[in-house]
Amino acid sequence: MMKKFTVVIISLLTVFNAVASDKEWRTLDPENAILLTLPHGKVVIELAPQFSPNHVKRFKTLAQKGHYDGNKFYRVIDGFVAQGGPEDGSIKDKAISELKIEADFSIDKNWTFTLVQQNDLFAEQTGFKEGFALGKSDKENKAWMLHCPGVIAMARTNAPNTATSHFYITNGQAPRYLDRIMTVFGRVVYGMDHVQAITRTSVIEGDTPVNPKDFTPMVKVQLMSDLPKEQQIRLEIKNTEHPSYAKKLSDRRKRESAFFYKKPPPVLDICQTPVGVRMIK
Amino acid sequence: MMKKFTVVIISLLTVFNAVASDKEWRTLDPENAILLTLPHGKVVIELAPQFSPNHVKRFKTLAQKGHYDGNKFYRVIDGFVAQGGPEDGSIKDKAISELKIEADFSIDKNWTFTLVQQNDLFAEQTGFKEGFALGKSDKENKAWMLHCPGVIAMARTNAPNTATSHFYITNGQAPRYLDRIMTVFGRVVYGMDHVQAITRTSVIEGDTPVNPKDFTPMVKVQLMSDLPKEQQIRLEIKNTEHPSYAKKLSDRRKRESAFFYKKPPPVLDICQTPVGVRMIK
Repeated sequence: MMKKFTVVIISLLTVFNAVASDKEWRTLDPENAILLTLPHGKVVIELAPQFSPNHVKRFKTLAQKGHYDGNKFYRVIDGFVAQGGPEDGSIKDKAISELKIEADFSIDKNWTFTLVQQNDLFAEQTGFKEGFALGKSDKENKAWMLHCPGVIAMARTNAPNTATSHFYITNGQAPRYLDRIMTVFGRVVYGMDHVQAITRTSVIEGDTPVNPKDFTPMVKVQLMSDLPKEQQIRLEIKNTEHPSYAKKLSDRRKRESAFFYKKPPPVLDICQTPVGVRMIK
Repeated sequence: MMKKFTVVIISLLTVFNAVASDKEWRTLDPENAILLTLPHGKVVIELAPQFSPNHVKRFKTLAQKGHYDGNKFYRVIDGFVAQGGPEDGSIKDKAISELKIEADFSIDKNWTFTLVQQNDLFAEQTGFKEGFALGKSDKENKAWMLHCPGVIAMARTNAPNTATSHFYITNGQAPRYLDRIMTVFGRVVYGMDHVQAITRTSVIEGDTPVNPKDFTPMVKVQLMSDLPKEQQIRLEIKNTEHPSYAKKLSDRRKRESAFFYKKPPPVLDICQTPVGVRMIK
């Protein structure tokens, strides 16, 4: 009986996946999306529970408790990260338990993704899975989320298992040297321009320091599904498992437009390879 | 007599270069720097006449004529470029002759740079020369400026030798596939946060379009040396030819800080490798 039941579930999942990968676009699940409201605009983050389950669970729980509302982005370095969280030493800061790092995960030989590049500078392979940029090592049977621009990851101390609630969003050239040692758990799918407009807290030597009262606050950090329907931002994202996406990658590699009077090397930097997003009105 | 005179000049140049590479910092030459004033802040661009002489000459001449003052950034795509120039079809737009492309240049076996990475995804070698990120091919005896974030390059039509005055500044993950087919001629050395705050003109499908009247204007584009001394922004930039910079690269590759409880691959993405800048008060 139990066995039969399992078979039914697997069949249903297979059907679901088949349907999902049949479509060029998939709908962003509001149960899996964060609305970050900044003073100057709205940002939507898609979470990745399939790759970093405990960090996603933590972030959702904290967002639902209002933990981040009014927190500041207190460490913002142009071309690197915008980091925020509760005030240092506050009750909010101290009350949260430490998480075990989820910076990579084991895969078996049946695990697949949409390949982007072999022998990327930092990884044996790069590819997309469900819209997220991943690295993969067949030697180690591991995969991991990449530090492309616009990912959200949890900060930590020097020790690996020390993430609590402070997080950063990457805002410059991908700091790929952080791959596999920091837990990425989602990515900005809307409003990256507003992330880029967060006030930098770090200035060069000799320049006027920024007054902490001018640091950019998070007005609200909410789970999208907790908002009334009319206040939700509803998005569709290109299905990176659809054959049309692999075709798009192949076309991008070939650069056949007349603009390319000389062809660049037939390689792709996954962090410079867009995954389309559109708004549902 | 002529020969002797040449020898003297070469000797002086050798002395000058020896002095220059003796110092950890070099002073940004105001004759070689552009001040781009945006409504929300000031941006400094260092020009690269040593690599793209005709494009630099063009840009300096146009800046000195006030050609760009009041122009808009009319094509701004998050994670890609902020492109600006005179209004399409205007007299300003049509009056400028086309430039021969300077997307790469020939080198001989004595040409050197401060090596950053062998077998980068897009180039045989990457390295810095005079603060600029370059690619190099010994097979082809060529070197070229890279499309790292914050470079300035001239736009063109599909034909290579068609650049006039429209330019772009890269604002996202390095679009390295444009290397060697577009003329990069400088880079932002101050105020990249203000470049990042330029209004995006391109929105996703379904989102509210941006009214062209809200596009970000260039209030002024001036040669720094044309400004009164007290209005100049004076900067020093790390001397990438100094031994301390090569040491910095080597340290960055090794990642010996305790933060790296597991070591990343010992490689460097040159576009994610900073060259320090500081302000002279």
